[in-house]
Amino acid sequence: MVIHYPNGKAYQAPAQSTAPSRVEYGGRGMTLEQELNASNDYYRVTGRAVVYKKPIPIQLVKVDYPKRSQAVIREAYFKTPSTTDYNGVYQGYYLDFEAKETKNKASFPLSNFHDHQIRHFKECLAQQGICFVVIRFATLHRLFVLPASVVLTAWSASTTGRKSIPLRQIEAAGFELQPQLQPVVPYLDGVDWLIQTKVGTTHGK
Amino acid sequence: MVIHYPNGKAYQAPAQSTAPSRVEYGGRGMTLEQELNASNDYYRVTGRAVVYKKPIPIQLVKVDYPKRSQAVIREAYFKTPSTTDYNGVYQGYYLDFEAKETKNKASFPLSNFHDHQIRHFKECLAQQGICFVVIRFATLHRLFVLPASVVLTAWSASTTGRKSIPLRQIEAAGFELQPQLQPVVPYLDGVDWLIQTKVGTTHGK
Repeated sequence: MVIHYPNGKAYQAPAQSTAPSRVEYGGRGMTLEQELNASNDYYRVTGRAVVYKKPIPIQLVKVDYPKRSQAVIREAYFKTPSTTDYNGVYQGYYLDFEAKETKNKASFPLSNFHDHQIRHFKECLAQQGICFVVIRFATLHRLFVLPASVVLTAWSASTTGRKSIPLRQIEAAGFELQPQLQPVVPYLDGVDWLIQTKVGTTHGK
Repeated sequence: MVIHYPNGKAYQAPAQSTAPSRVEYGGRGMTLEQELNASNDYYRVTGRAVVYKKPIPIQLVKVDYPKRSQAVIREAYFKTPSTTDYNGVYQGYYLDFEAKETKNKASFPLSNFHDHQIRHFKECLAQQGICFVVIRFATLHRLFVLPASVVLTAWSASTTGRKSIPLRQIEAAGFELQPQLQPVVPYLDGVDWLIQTKVGTTHGK
């Protein structure tokens, strides 16, 4: 299903940007977004972290209230989001991230990012948030937590230079997640690594 | 406009729970929600904090894509939110809050809160988030930042005891905000006070 922004531009579901069909991964047949929602549920129920995906912002125009029944939205429009998709709290740290998927095998295309996500990452990093991207190389069955700072640097360079981040750079600058049963996407392992490498510089309270 | 949850229960816009009509406050004629959105914009633009109101969660059923035009949602339903309305990051701290308004003069009715908000506050406090409620006594023209812990205690006691928080308790346990031009709701003043009184116990990294 293709959804459009008010300006007519196609909305790309973040977790499915380059993989609109369901990706068979580890035999579970869930999209990255579904896997992250399940992982967030797991982390919340087990008291590890409180993280949610933000709802898609909607402009309501017409809502019907049938008697003895629930309200029905009859006319509404998609608004352009202002932020990334996921945020929450983990041991006092503010977490903020996007989920992205690619079928590429050698690099991650920066076209998967939108201006508002880049701007939001910059603002959150300035407030000492823990900001990152969960990147899946679907064909390779590999999953990474990549610091937002790496994306910002590549984004700035892309105006004159290359429009993607090489896999070898993601391997070097990111944290590879090992798929497991529960949670399916153990991204807090990458967050622990991020905090360990960053404490004292960005979160030295 | 009354909106209903899928179970038919009426949705109460958080900032207008007991004041569905616009409240004239300081001559600006904005609701508390509008004032908070303006304040969040101000804090973000000035680099003080990154805080957004979460969109209302929607279940999409039918979306039309007229040619050369933007997508139109033709059938959708409101879902019960899982969280509070506002969250974000401030100097490395995770902020999470609700906005509530009452016309009462002597106490704040706990009926303004919903189960999911109480549960979410508990979970976020366990993760060392900075959780609070911005409460406006519309008739009195008084505005407070009240720690979520005070609400949780009153909520627990309300099963057998009183169903509201007395104003005198809010005066004693909360932080009164002084209305000003920019931002209209200077809630970070209350957050600074919260952090000052709490550091070492909940956020002593």
